[in-house]
Amino acid sequence: MPAATLSELCINSIRFLAIDAVEKAKSGHPGLPMGAAPMAFVLWDQFMRFNPKNPAWCNRDRFVLSAGHGCMLQYALLHLTGYDSVTIDDIKQFRQWESKTPGHPENFMTSGVEVTTGPLGQGIANGVGLAMAEAHLAARFNQPDATIVDHYTYVILGDGCNMEGISGEACSLAGHLGLGKLIALYDDNHISIDGSTDVSFTEDVSKRFEAYGWHVLHVADGNTDLEGIARAIAEAKSVTDKPSMIKVTTTIGYGSPNKGNTADVHGAALGASEVELTRKNLSWEFPPFELPPDALAHFRKAVDRGASAEAEWNEVYATYKSKYPTEAAQFEAFLSGVLPEGWEKSLPTYTPADKGLATRKHSEITLNAIAGSVPQLLGGSADLTHSNYTQLKGTGDFQKGQYVNRNLKFGVREHGMGAICNGIALHGGLIPYCATFLVFADYMRGAIRLSALAEAGVIYVMTHDSIALGEDGPTHQPVETLASLRAIPDLLVFRPADGNETSGAYKVAIENTVAAKKRPSLLAFSRQNLPNLEGTTIEKVATGGYILSDSEGTPEIILIGTGGELYLCAEAAKQLREAGKKVRVVSLPCWELFEEQDAAYKESVLPKAVTKRLVVEAASDFGWHRYIGDGGDMIAIEGFGASAPGNVILEKYGYTVDNVVARAKALLG
Amino acid sequence: MPAATLSELCINSIRFLAIDAVEKAKSGHPGLPMGAAPMAFVLWDQFMRFNPKNPAWCNRDRFVLSAGHGCMLQYALLHLTGYDSVTIDDIKQFRQWESKTPGHPENFMTSGVEVTTGPLGQGIANGVGLAMAEAHLAARFNQPDATIVDHYTYVILGDGCNMEGISGEACSLAGHLGLGKLIALYDDNHISIDGSTDVSFTEDVSKRFEAYGWHVLHVADGNTDLEGIARAIAEAKSVTDKPSMIKVTTTIGYGSPNKGNTADVHGAALGASEVELTRKNLSWEFPPFELPPDALAHFRKAVDRGASAEAEWNEVYATYKSKYPTEAAQFEAFLSGVLPEGWEKSLPTYTPADKGLATRKHSEITLNAIAGSVPQLLGGSADLTHSNYTQLKGTGDFQKGQYVNRNLKFGVREHGMGAICNGIALHGGLIPYCATFLVFADYMRGAIRLSALAEAGVIYVMTHDSIALGEDGPTHQPVETLASLRAIPDLLVFRPADGNETSGAYKVAIENTVAAKKRPSLLAFSRQNLPNLEGTTIEKVATGGYILSDSEGTPEIILIGTGGELYLCAEAAKQLREAGKKVRVVSLPCWELFEEQDAAYKESVLPKAVTKRLVVEAASDFGWHRYIGDGGDMIAIEGFGASAPGNVILEKYGYTVDNVVARAKALLG
Repeated sequence: MPAATLSELCINSIRFLAIDAVEKAKSGHPGLPMGAAPMAFVLWDQFMRFNPKNPAWCNRDRFVLSAGHGCMLQYALLHLTGYDSVTIDDIKQFRQWESKTPGHPENFMTSGVEVTTGPLGQGIANGVGLAMAEAHLAARFNQPDATIVDHYTYVILGDGCNMEGISGEACSLAGHLGLGKLIALYDDNHISIDGSTDVSFTEDVSKRFEAYGWHVLHVADGNTDLEGIARAIAEAKSVTDKPSMIKVTTTIGYGSPNKGNTADVHGAALGASEVELTRKNLSWEFPPFELPPDALAHFRKAVDRGASAEAEWNEVYATYKSKYPTEAAQFEAFLSGVLPEGWEKSLPTYTPADKGLATRKHSEITLNAIAGSVPQLLGGSADLTHSNYTQLKGTGDFQKGQYVNRNLKFGVREHGMGAICNGIALHGGLIPYCATFLVFADYMRGAIRLSALAEAGVIYVMTHDSIALGEDGPTHQPVETLASLRAIPDLLVFRPADGNETSGAYKVAIENTVAAKKRPSLLAFSRQNLPNLEGTTIEKVATGGYILSDSEGTPEIILIGTGGELYLCAEAAKQLREAGKKVRVVSLPCWELFEEQDAAYKESVLPKAVTKRLVVEAASDFGWHRYIGDGGDMIAIEGFGASAPGNVILEKYGYTVDNVVARAKALLG
Repeated sequence: MPAATLSELCINSIRFLAIDAVEKAKSGHPGLPMGAAPMAFVLWDQFMRFNPKNPAWCNRDRFVLSAGHGCMLQYALLHLTGYDSVTIDDIKQFRQWESKTPGHPENFMTSGVEVTTGPLGQGIANGVGLAMAEAHLAARFNQPDATIVDHYTYVILGDGCNMEGISGEACSLAGHLGLGKLIALYDDNHISIDGSTDVSFTEDVSKRFEAYGWHVLHVADGNTDLEGIARAIAEAKSVTDKPSMIKVTTTIGYGSPNKGNTADVHGAALGASEVELTRKNLSWEFPPFELPPDALAHFRKAVDRGASAEAEWNEVYATYKSKYPTEAAQFEAFLSGVLPEGWEKSLPTYTPADKGLATRKHSEITLNAIAGSVPQLLGGSADLTHSNYTQLKGTGDFQKGQYVNRNLKFGVREHGMGAICNGIALHGGLIPYCATFLVFADYMRGAIRLSALAEAGVIYVMTHDSIALGEDGPTHQPVETLASLRAIPDLLVFRPADGNETSGAYKVAIENTVAAKKRPSLLAFSRQNLPNLEGTTIEKVATGGYILSDSEGTPEIILIGTGGELYLCAEAAKQLREAGKKVRVVSLPCWELFEEQDAAYKESVLPKAVTKRLVVEAASDFGWHRYIGDGGDMIAIEGFGASAPGNVILEKYGYTVDNVVARAKALLG
């Protein structure tokens, strides 16, 4: 047997780090790293520009492992190329409590990991977002004589990613947008968990990507044809007006004599004897977690290469900065997440004398009011631009060749939209928002959850937030949707009642996109007009819940409202007070923020002793018992909505001032 | 101007019913009906087999308007062809309270509507399910000399449906399965709400469908080339080993001189003056809601045609019944939703002496135990067959040419899977189940909601139901997922604690798929082993919540548990009782069922006076305050999960007997 080449040593270093880490953890997915090691090696060795000692270098190429279960591939690469975040001890701690090497790649755990992947299809959609962010920042900041934003986004995805609808949505849009710097390597190994892809997935993936407008290539032997892989990536880079998809045909679990090319190697340790046989088969003489010095030395050249690349960029940037100081200052502010001083002064405020509008209209006014003071803001809707009211005036549509524009047109692709926005947010430098009807949060929930988990500062603009939307009927009317979203950890869910609360919600939402721990926000807006209320302010929204109006002394009853029903509480309170009742009205636009207040504040708003509480929200009561308490009540919706004019439905479901008064009186006894 | 042909009169009858109904409601979507009227007319007039006077005739062709916003097209067709469910007065009540003509097609409101559509992409995926149900029933029941199941599924879908990922998932699977009796007409009108599809959707849809393995046709002039449409449908029918997609290029709002071919006509009334101009333009002399007698007479021939078709089928069926009485009896039982007498006796029962298993394993045992006694059951997993444990033994995989088999292989397509199962359930005759990890309910929530809304008896088998799944980490660990699902109206969410509760959950789930008002169920199962508990029974699960064990007299504290944490409560109760405390343990496997019990029963299980309650569930506390009450507490998860072995995570998050005891003692003071 001939001596292994250096490349073989390097590739097998990746494979055995994966094999041995999974074996030690007795848990994990060795198959993908074993099969995709050659393409990953070629990509990271010959093409990827990155600086292991500064994973945050802004012009690094982005790498996304969309097939996140194969995370040992990524950890191996990070370790081998010299990232400090993944030591050999970290690899030995694969999948253990608080380790840097969790069971799927988590950007908030491991420096060098760009995005959190694992739920299939998310990563490739994130990759589309990363490439859109690059294209936009390049268009905004590059100058004819100084290119400071210029990097690629590389994605490795598998059969599972390609079966998921979200990847189709995002890739169709990527093709439309002609994102030439997006290069996807499809690990075509013909195996998914249920066995051969022949059981459910026999479509022609390459042809589908061609239909999307991608540049498509094929490497027939992804196991050993390193030159073929390199040639394909080079060719992909040479096509600048289309994203490229390289189908790389591989063998899952390559090297394992009995489990290679079977589903057995997908998601379980090989087992001691098969590890032994694989070592023999690949002529691997090193004990677990030991690496051939030559291979390690070769990989570690990435450290110098990365330092040089960044130094080179620094020079370009120094020139840029001296010639374009204003642009450079803004570029740095974008990247460091600094909002322009006093930006919040652009938020509109209102008095009750101001004409009542739908809060979706207030949202439009607010977005346009802050578009100038928050220049890193960009976004759009899933084909509901003029229902969601999300168009920014004074800038055009982000399209092929017009990447400088800030209005994104996602098409009817909610799930892809959310994941794309996660990619934009995690690229750094930009604040993305995206929009659809509130009920279709259900279509994009996989991405919304990941915004929260991965600390991606995305703003979800969700209009038509209750049965009051009317005629479209129950398929379009959220009932349980607010509850389902409030349940997501680290997601700020707002339901503003009027203009001031809309401004207040945006203030907190924007601030959270650049906070130390970034949090996404979801803003639920009404379709119907609502009055501007006495007692609302921008500042109060930041408390999550506050006293809108009160009677003197201890209230006998507290009316709690949100969004479109708060004014019912305000009106009912007036009538009840006229009838001699002591009534407090509490607005609760954001539960999460209210729960974060100290106990004294919460008690001051909702005193435990006041058990007569009536909640008024045009939604399910699910989750509300936290505030209703044992002695309270709620005007809530059971079952689904109905098709009829909005005002008719509101009345039929009991959302009238008269009914609030009646239910309050019943509670008062 | 030449006199209108009869076909033109018929087509314009559809158009003006839509125009005038939307105009009267001042709400709705006239554009699609105006553009798609020609293809719909040709399809319903020349091809569709249905009996307007018996919409439930089992061998009718199924029609799905996937672009559900264009529902006036469907209501017009139902009215014109003589369905009793949609009178002209019903059409005048378009989008009004409790009308038969709601804002989107609702199968539970309007006889003749097969499935609820509106959320884009669902309908075409339902269509795949309808075609799979037909293929399966045909394979099960047809005999060489008697074909009793033999119908087509026709779908009209639009650009929006084709942008949604769910349609790609379902159509990829349909191509794989070679569903030759599925024929989709793609209303290619180049307009979506944001304007021209050029802004976001420029892929080659036909090529994509070819890549899926579909037979693809194109009618270039879908506005006037009725022969071309007819030829294409005939050709589609002639290809029996592939589903067919006919791209029919049309003009949205055809006939409206100023709004046709623009987004303005998509989702709003034309307005009086444009209606007037459209009447002139199409030479339509009839006032609103009046129809040309010739056209109506022609359409109404469907009544006789349908009666003949059914009569013909009845003859075939009579022969079948005499020759194959056993099969006929089963066929009738399937269609009428009758379960075999005593089927529930096949449900396994357990005692504490029986070896503890993961509830996902109990689920597998139960599915296989009832596969014989519930022969209409079929289903499978989204590529997690051997993790979800959903394979039925004794039958093979449902594949092209092997439609008789009952194991469905969905691939990694959760959203498509859910919608396909809705289609199977709403076809009638079958009980579908489908499976993935619980956390990925997020990917298919759009379909789960529609199961509940549309009364589709689907069983969702969701395994890996908590942080206890371990190493895969937070992307795979449900925390808020149970809450988000419990919030969905009319969905029964079960979290069984052991073998008996698993059997009990399946009993209720199966019964609800054939109830008068059908309800879907979602069963959450553990990855990890759990003991069989003293006090669980199949029957008790039907109450939703019950006393598992108790002390004598009034309890000082109630421990409430579900699923994998119930045994912690049982063990902690023993220790607390040994320490002299009066402790009740309540199992709450299904909130929805518990809430349906009468007040006396609920009080008997959870007496209001006992305010010291400790809930133990490895999930978010969201929604639990209903049972925790003002004086209770919960061992809950804040934030997301983590990657580590399951037992480590459970301990870190406080799910141990010791901690339950400690927290109970703290509550007791």
